[in-house]
Amino acid sequence: MSFRTIEAAKAALLDKELMSSMGFSIDQLMELAGLAVAQAVFKEYPPSSAKNCLILCGPGNNGGDGLVAARHLKLFGYTPKVYYPKPTNRPIFQGLTTQLENFNIAFVSDLPPELKSCDLIIDSLFGFSFKPPIRSPFDSVIAQMLDAQNNGKHIVAVDIPSGWDVDAGPVSPEIKNYQPDLLVSLTAPKPCTKLLSPHSSHYVGGRFIPQEFAQKWNIDLPPFHGVDQCSKLNYHMD
Amino acid sequence: MSFRTIEAAKAALLDKELMSSMGFSIDQLMELAGLAVAQAVFKEYPPSSAKNCLILCGPGNNGGDGLVAARHLKLFGYTPKVYYPKPTNRPIFQGLTTQLENFNIAFVSDLPPELKSCDLIIDSLFGFSFKPPIRSPFDSVIAQMLDAQNNGKHIVAVDIPSGWDVDAGPVSPEIKNYQPDLLVSLTAPKPCTKLLSPHSSHYVGGRFIPQEFAQKWNIDLPPFHGVDQCSKLNYHMD
Repeated sequence: MSFRTIEAAKAALLDKELMSSMGFSIDQLMELAGLAVAQAVFKEYPPSSAKNCLILCGPGNNGGDGLVAARHLKLFGYTPKVYYPKPTNRPIFQGLTTQLENFNIAFVSDLPPELKSCDLIIDSLFGFSFKPPIRSPFDSVIAQMLDAQNNGKHIVAVDIPSGWDVDAGPVSPEIKNYQPDLLVSLTAPKPCTKLLSPHSSHYVGGRFIPQEFAQKWNIDLPPFHGVDQCSKLNYHMD
Repeated sequence: MSFRTIEAAKAALLDKELMSSMGFSIDQLMELAGLAVAQAVFKEYPPSSAKNCLILCGPGNNGGDGLVAARHLKLFGYTPKVYYPKPTNRPIFQGLTTQLENFNIAFVSDLPPELKSCDLIIDSLFGFSFKPPIRSPFDSVIAQMLDAQNNGKHIVAVDIPSGWDVDAGPVSPEIKNYQPDLLVSLTAPKPCTKLLSPHSSHYVGGRFIPQEFAQKWNIDLPPFHGVDQCSKLNYHMD
């Protein structure tokens, strides 16, 4: 059985429609997306196996999903730390940052020791609106993250593995061997997921789309179980 | 073992702090509260036993929690209908209404046939800011709802059983015998829950408070399991 993907340009339009005629606010969608990421992490890496999570947050909405996930991970029993080198001053991001400070979640700036001491890395640097090249400091952040993976750390990527071209996959030479251990596609998988290693786990997260909307946009809804906000895929990407 | 309650006046201050120094937006809190309500409904009345839910929404934030719950219930496999006689024109409420329309969730106005044909009633008419008397049309709505309960329908109350005094309980003569079948207290139980029947199920929903914040406000966090957004209480209310 196959599962449809949605190209970068179309995903941007879908997102726009969610926040206009569908009536959602960015706060709602980011909350549900980040919650779905935290739930997928819990399913694959329960806190008993990976208490210390390091969440790498980029400057855009993908970083915001990571900030939300950090809060839920703390509530789920993890000890998250956040690396957020380029904070955005839009109200939702300021609010998310304030929440994390109130949860006593550490914001860290010196990456090497944190990458060494963590159990799990969450890559929420770039999402479906990413366009190459990878700009500083994120080129170095990604290089250090991949070094840590080579040294045995697991990586959970949010929406796309950062640095991958959303449609074409790992085309830049710096990240051509990057495969996350777990990918949480948000709303629907992007075309690059066709190049995901069969050794990577793959979830779809974000449970906020009605069946009719999915049909209109030519995407598939995964089989969500019970009240789950994410669903593990065992499909061929189409 | 006992579980602490929070009086109406203090709950209002706590809510205010969540949306100021804690950094939350109303969109986030309402989303998580409504999701918690839908999850508690799923645990006590799975869709196989109660597919047709009628959600009675009041004019304030309690009604907003009901609107969010309606969307999640649809996603969880229920067929919800919404009775919302006094819609609020604040952006969050307009957004929630638009979302439900896009989910093809029916807004109904003729209550008697709906109360007769539904399997389950969600009472999200009034929350912790309710002050008597019960104003029209809600006096009649509550009377009809209680008639339906007498005829075998189950009622799930959101935060408080509507019409109950938040601190003193079922003091108005119209609702003195009202006991919901399930109560989902939001953030923390209110003092009136000390008068909840031992035959009523009681959950706490809303998982967005850090331990330090709970301590500061002298409330208890329930033992949330896994990624659950609600927790069933088996405590004496204190």
